[in-house]
Amino acid sequence: MSHPTITDRLADPSGARESGRKKIEWARQHMPIMTSIAETFGEERPLEGQTVAMAMHVEAKTAVLTEVIAEAGAEVAITGCNPLSTHDDVSAALDAHDAITSYAEREVDDEAYYAAIEATLDHGPTVTVDDGGDLVMAIHDEYPELIDSILGGCEETTTGVHRLRAMDSDGELRYPMFAVNDTPMKRLFDNVHGTGEASLSNVAMTTNLSFAGKTVVVAGYGYCGKGVAKKAKGQNAHVIVTEVEPRRALEAHMEGYEVCPMAEAAEKGDVFVTTTGNRDVIVGEHFERMADGVVLANAGHFNVEIDLDSLDDLAVARREVRDGVEEFEMEDGRRINVLAEGRLVNLASPVAMGHPVEVMDQSFGVQAVCVREMVENADSYDAGVHEVPDELDREVAEIKLDAEGIGIDALSDEQSAYMNSWQHGT
Amino acid sequence: MSHPTITDRLADPSGARESGRKKIEWARQHMPIMTSIAETFGEERPLEGQTVAMAMHVEAKTAVLTEVIAEAGAEVAITGCNPLSTHDDVSAALDAHDAITSYAEREVDDEAYYAAIEATLDHGPTVTVDDGGDLVMAIHDEYPELIDSILGGCEETTTGVHRLRAMDSDGELRYPMFAVNDTPMKRLFDNVHGTGEASLSNVAMTTNLSFAGKTVVVAGYGYCGKGVAKKAKGQNAHVIVTEVEPRRALEAHMEGYEVCPMAEAAEKGDVFVTTTGNRDVIVGEHFERMADGVVLANAGHFNVEIDLDSLDDLAVARREVRDGVEEFEMEDGRRINVLAEGRLVNLASPVAMGHPVEVMDQSFGVQAVCVREMVENADSYDAGVHEVPDELDREVAEIKLDAEGIGIDALSDEQSAYMNSWQHGT
Amino acid sequence: MSHPTITDRLADPSGARESGRKKIEWARQHMPIMTSIAETFGEERPLEGQTVAMAMHVEAKTAVLTEVIAEAGAEVAITGCNPLSTHDDVSAALDAHDAITSYAEREVDDEAYYAAIEATLDHGPTVTVDDGGDLVMAIHDEYPELIDSILGGCEETTTGVHRLRAMDSDGELRYPMFAVNDTPMKRLFDNVHGTGEASLSNVAMTTNLSFAGKTVVVAGYGYCGKGVAKKAKGQNAHVIVTEVEPRRALEAHMEGYEVCPMAEAAEKGDVFVTTTGNRDVIVGEHFERMADGVVLANAGHFNVEIDLDSLDDLAVARREVRDGVEEFEMEDGRRINVLAEGRLVNLASPVAMGHPVEVMDQSFGVQAVCVREMVENADSYDAGVHEVPDELDREVAEIKLDAEGIGIDALSDEQSAYMNSWQHGT
Amino acid sequence: MSHPTITDRLADPSGARESGRKKIEWARQHMPIMTSIAETFGEERPLEGQTVAMAMHVEAKTAVLTEVIAEAGAEVAITGCNPLSTHDDVSAALDAHDAITSYAEREVDDEAYYAAIEATLDHGPTVTVDDGGDLVMAIHDEYPELIDSILGGCEETTTGVHRLRAMDSDGELRYPMFAVNDTPMKRLFDNVHGTGEASLSNVAMTTNLSFAGKTVVVAGYGYCGKGVAKKAKGQNAHVIVTEVEPRRALEAHMEGYEVCPMAEAAEKGDVFVTTTGNRDVIVGEHFERMADGVVLANAGHFNVEIDLDSLDDLAVARREVRDGVEEFEMEDGRRINVLAEGRLVNLASPVAMGHPVEVMDQSFGVQAVCVREMVENADSYDAGVHEVPDELDREVAEIKLDAEGIGIDALSDEQSAYMNSWQHGT
Repeated sequence: MSHPTITDRLADPSGARESGRKKIEWARQHMPIMTSIAETFGEERPLEGQTVAMAMHVEAKTAVLTEVIAEAGAEVAITGCNPLSTHDDVSAALDAHDAITSYAEREVDDEAYYAAIEATLDHGPTVTVDDGGDLVMAIHDEYPELIDSILGGCEETTTGVHRLRAMDSDGELRYPMFAVNDTPMKRLFDNVHGTGEASLSNVAMTTNLSFAGKTVVVAGYGYCGKGVAKKAKGQNAHVIVTEVEPRRALEAHMEGYEVCPMAEAAEKGDVFVTTTGNRDVIVGEHFERMADGVVLANAGHFNVEIDLDSLDDLAVARREVRDGVEEFEMEDGRRINVLAEGRLVNLASPVAMGHPVEVMDQSFGVQAVCVREMVENADSYDAGVHEVPDELDREVAEIKLDAEGIGIDALSDEQSAYMNSWQHGT
Repeated sequence: MSHPTITDRLADPSGARESGRKKIEWARQHMPIMTSIAETFGEERPLEGQTVAMAMHVEAKTAVLTEVIAEAGAEVAITGCNPLSTHDDVSAALDAHDAITSYAEREVDDEAYYAAIEATLDHGPTVTVDDGGDLVMAIHDEYPELIDSILGGCEETTTGVHRLRAMDSDGELRYPMFAVNDTPMKRLFDNVHGTGEASLSNVAMTTNLSFAGKTVVVAGYGYCGKGVAKKAKGQNAHVIVTEVEPRRALEAHMEGYEVCPMAEAAEKGDVFVTTTGNRDVIVGEHFERMADGVVLANAGHFNVEIDLDSLDDLAVARREVRDGVEEFEMEDGRRINVLAEGRLVNLASPVAMGHPVEVMDQSFGVQAVCVREMVENADSYDAGVHEVPDELDREVAEIKLDAEGIGIDALSDEQSAYMNSWQHGT
Repeated sequence: MSHPTITDRLADPSGARESGRKKIEWARQHMPIMTSIAETFGEERPLEGQTVAMAMHVEAKTAVLTEVIAEAGAEVAITGCNPLSTHDDVSAALDAHDAITSYAEREVDDEAYYAAIEATLDHGPTVTVDDGGDLVMAIHDEYPELIDSILGGCEETTTGVHRLRAMDSDGELRYPMFAVNDTPMKRLFDNVHGTGEASLSNVAMTTNLSFAGKTVVVAGYGYCGKGVAKKAKGQNAHVIVTEVEPRRALEAHMEGYEVCPMAEAAEKGDVFVTTTGNRDVIVGEHFERMADGVVLANAGHFNVEIDLDSLDDLAVARREVRDGVEEFEMEDGRRINVLAEGRLVNLASPVAMGHPVEVMDQSFGVQAVCVREMVENADSYDAGVHEVPDELDREVAEIKLDAEGIGIDALSDEQSAYMNSWQHGT
Repeated sequence: MSHPTITDRLADPSGARESGRKKIEWARQHMPIMTSIAETFGEERPLEGQTVAMAMHVEAKTAVLTEVIAEAGAEVAITGCNPLSTHDDVSAALDAHDAITSYAEREVDDEAYYAAIEATLDHGPTVTVDDGGDLVMAIHDEYPELIDSILGGCEETTTGVHRLRAMDSDGELRYPMFAVNDTPMKRLFDNVHGTGEASLSNVAMTTNLSFAGKTVVVAGYGYCGKGVAKKAKGQNAHVIVTEVEPRRALEAHMEGYEVCPMAEAAEKGDVFVTTTGNRDVIVGEHFERMADGVVLANAGHFNVEIDLDSLDDLAVARREVRDGVEEFEMEDGRRINVLAEGRLVNLASPVAMGHPVEVMDQSFGVQAVCVREMVENADSYDAGVHEVPDELDREVAEIKLDAEGIGIDALSDEQSAYMNSWQHGT
């Protein structure tokens, strides 16, 4: 094969492998859902004969999903979905697996990044698993000849699903994709709890600042924004929410948060976290109103939420003051600190380990059963974006409750009948 | 008219009217959305020529909705939707309005209750507004001849929408109904905040007990259950959630609540609040495990959640120990206290004033624009249950934000384009 | 006796007695500490031969303390400590007890109020129990001849302890008084949880308003203010704290609350709760900045925190709009609503039942063991204000944990030694 | 001088200095109190002619205190107070200061650790600043001849104050020490918010685990325990508190936490954080009851809270599974993970940066004014432990409020008079 894998390029592959292996084992130890699915899949081999291409953040948790897919019988080719989020040692450890080839490498340039995607697709996937949509885009734009052999795929993120829906409504999405991001399991746990906790831990550990008494501005009140706002409040921050959608704004207001436009929040905030999935959320006029020493972080998928170009234009000096913290000095002496170059802070900060293990356990549990579904019931899904079938989502919840030893009630026949009836009086 | 209205039957109608009028004015003072809608509707008279039949909890807030519908040009006939929730003085004050006839009366027997529904329907409604579905049921079961003249209706509650969806899936719902309950505006504010706060205030004020350090068992983790659990935690209770749906159970667990079956919760709880919308949530085996002095309250629409018949069978004595608190003494001396006879505690407790004013302001704002929509665009809606159109819900949110003086951001053209595009790279 | 007791003056004493008796029984059912102390005191009769004069809020919970003191062997004479907080039926039920005489009556004028204090003192107390200091004041000012026979007393409130400490530092306090208010048991549970929960429940139930999304201004960040702020935040209010002490202000800020002067808070608040124990907390300049429809309540002991005289001067009209809500109309049409005439809202609102039962159980448990201590170890205490001895406070905590079935760890000998040593290295 | 300083021993002192300098500047940028005090002290030089010996965690924030003391005119000698908490680059940057000599070095053995203390004392201090009491101990035990020249000192931690009070009550403390730990400023902010946030961030970032849905056992409910419990709840953990003091246990219970003995908590917990300041909090019988995969961390000063010796005895294998995570494998296969070798997790974890900057700003602000006080008013303080004078604590709070732009109210003369009077009636 013309594409070198990660192990070809690492100076000390075996040491990296061992370090990566330890990380993967730690993750697996705390992923009860994946452990349970691995057992079942290992016995049933539902992906026998499939080739799965993946473009995801290559770190320990994703590695567990990758391995479980391989243990289910598939050949897997994987690459990164963000130049800064790959852990080379994990990539090496994965690549050492007989059924897995990893092309992910940290801090590669654009050319190498896209070459790795290409290499992944060269395996001729029958299923694709994306985090941001890069594989689907590349296949549709440059390798349309692969489409006929593809049964379907899964997309992990809000942003990726956005892109897919736009393609779909333009009639350009040519194979079925599960919008894994949109399941209750994914949204509530990964976005609210995962992004919420991890974004703030990363801000705290990168800056050594605290949240008590701080004014934290959360841009966007979708699932991620709700998580960041809730966890910041839980750390005794004063939280301001900015929004463009009136119902979400009202929801934030009813929760007790201060709600105002960003131009006003810019003057009040100490820490800013963007979670909108949109571009230009914090721009020139906002930088001009900010206080000295503010900290800016992005928790959205792409590094477009904070307009660094205009910040750079406004600044008279720019330097790294800590690992992962770049200080922009303004003409009037004010210092604006940007974390992780405006990239997803819980994946790209210097101390980043991404989302918490258990949260990804749930999210990847849905991914695993969705890949199985796409293989087993491919005929049921036309080209286009599909919601994850309710019973799959529910299946994963049941696996998790079992693993945690949590019992719930069952509806009696009378109760089921009652819920289905409408003849009862007042 | 053969049906006597409320004022015929009250000993001191004018005194009642004045007292009811004061209550309505207080509510209106704190309902900025309805105040704003009243201005617009008063000028535009969108309901001119319509007859609106309503079956709702007749108290001050509902009265404001009733009056705003009348001020929009409609003739209104209203009755209660629960024998215990009517405030006679408010009913009298409404009935004094030229365009409104009220048949609602507190603590009537079943016969009188249904006679009042009948009287309301005798007005020949063109639009119906329900809270629990009584009007729709009565019309379909007993007055099908009215259906042809009816443009459509609105349903306020979870329970009512349940009934309507069951009818609809049986093909028996013969005119269009808006599921007002299902809107974000309604669910998030009324169910979460309204039911949450009001249920607990009513329990506190009926019993003089506190929540700090108490174990509060919340049955059901839908919107109402989420509200009760969240507010109880906010009062420093230890909260246990019971559920039948694994994803909701998991959601409660991830929020930090203890989750277990009711049989286990029964042994641990001090206060129990049912919010499931289902029957037989707390039954014999649960009563047998409860500690001495527990307090049971229902926050679901119907009084079927706590199985009082079997509690009565198990008890050796039963007496009212406080206004609104009935004590069941068990053979072993344990005392089980039931509030408001197991009826909706925030409407039926002795101190009950129902949901908070502002919360109903939002919910009734949606009702008002939905009634307008049903009249103005009746042709757009077939028989069956309809979601509230997104723009109506959004319209009400914007009215509220305006009234609160809360500004939000607007998407720039570039941002809108970005959200709609999928061509951007990583 | 020249002073008529409550039963002489009630039209239907036996009916009142029964109603009062039920209330007392309900309270006792939920007061595990008092139940446990009653058992011990009933056997040991530690107050045999004593005469205890009490001036307290005469309602069900206080009645349990009164009865337990009587069951311990004392003769008790009791009167109210606030003209609006007495429940006549509870007063009648108490008065029916052989060893108890009650002079408390609701809504008496000043003359009758002080006559009742006088009547109480005519019993010749050996111990006094105060809530606000009225008995101690009356004794020192008008009945100094009683002092020689008095062993000591207890004071329940912050305000009363303030007064006593001022007397003490002037050298004018002539018998020993326990500052029950200052114990951890009292402050943390009664002030934080009791005042916090009860103040807000009373505001909610008097106004039918909710807290979600409201801006609640809490004046003062002592124990009561902390409780109100915390519980308001727990109901999803946006909380503003005003203070005069920089450390408390900073503490509130670090908790995530907005902190600003009252003049600024006045413009932002929807609901105002005063908890300072000081006068003139909300005055003319503040009323002038408030929005239409604001609600003002006092959670401090005296009705001096909201300056009603100047509000009355500013107002063009004044009327009761709901039970317990007086509306002051300003010249520009703004309406300012004052609850319970600015008196302690959780005792004086129309729906008021005072502090929650369990919270008073803890506070009165300390009272009971303090009265016992004052009798058993009178010689140990000089004239002046005394802290409650640590072991008494601890005794009550242990009784409560026992009653709740909560186990804790015990220090091993090695651990005790470690805590007492300083020889250990790094 | 016979003791080599840190710069003598570092391979690349200048690179280290630059890295340390950056860290110190970042901290100073976010320490408004120290910035303000530095300005005043720089002008007034209150420590001119003094020699200050310090034994503290040598990292960026402490460095700012050290520099401010030097800028106030003192000569400073500093060493570490914990072998694992020193940042060598910060130590080197400090040592580069003309008036500062630093002996602190990371991961030194016991001999070198004590040699550094000795070297620090060789400077002949007139004031000592301790974090754990090592300097005071060493001076009293081995260098009593220094005592005559010492004006006094300050102690930063709970543990250190414990040791000093024990010495004091044995009559062995021979110079005055301020118990900085006991001030409201220190306890509320540093212990509650600082330890609370930093402990959990360090656990999260060391393990990549999350708190939502986890059961977090907090041993001890003093200020640190309250902080950890509160912040864990704010991250949606289910929190269990263990205690030995009944009032603290009850306080935790009233807050809504589950309270039980450690033997019971051991079976339920996922994450354990010790905050007691005592030894043997988690011992053999507890390890035996724990579930597979539990995580143990210590937030108390010394590494004695988790009994690692007995854990090692029970384990069949022991290995580092991640940086800072040691896994003990039990005979039955269960894995128990201990963070940072049981040392203070927010100072000793691999990602540790210690307490948040702003929190230390407040704590060190008190230190700075206390050192000034000890110099300026040495005659006012006898040998023994002294509370920090109220006005110093208040002074720091005012500096902070100023810096944050937070206004508070001032008492009017009438209000001051009211608070001091007791003549007012009911």
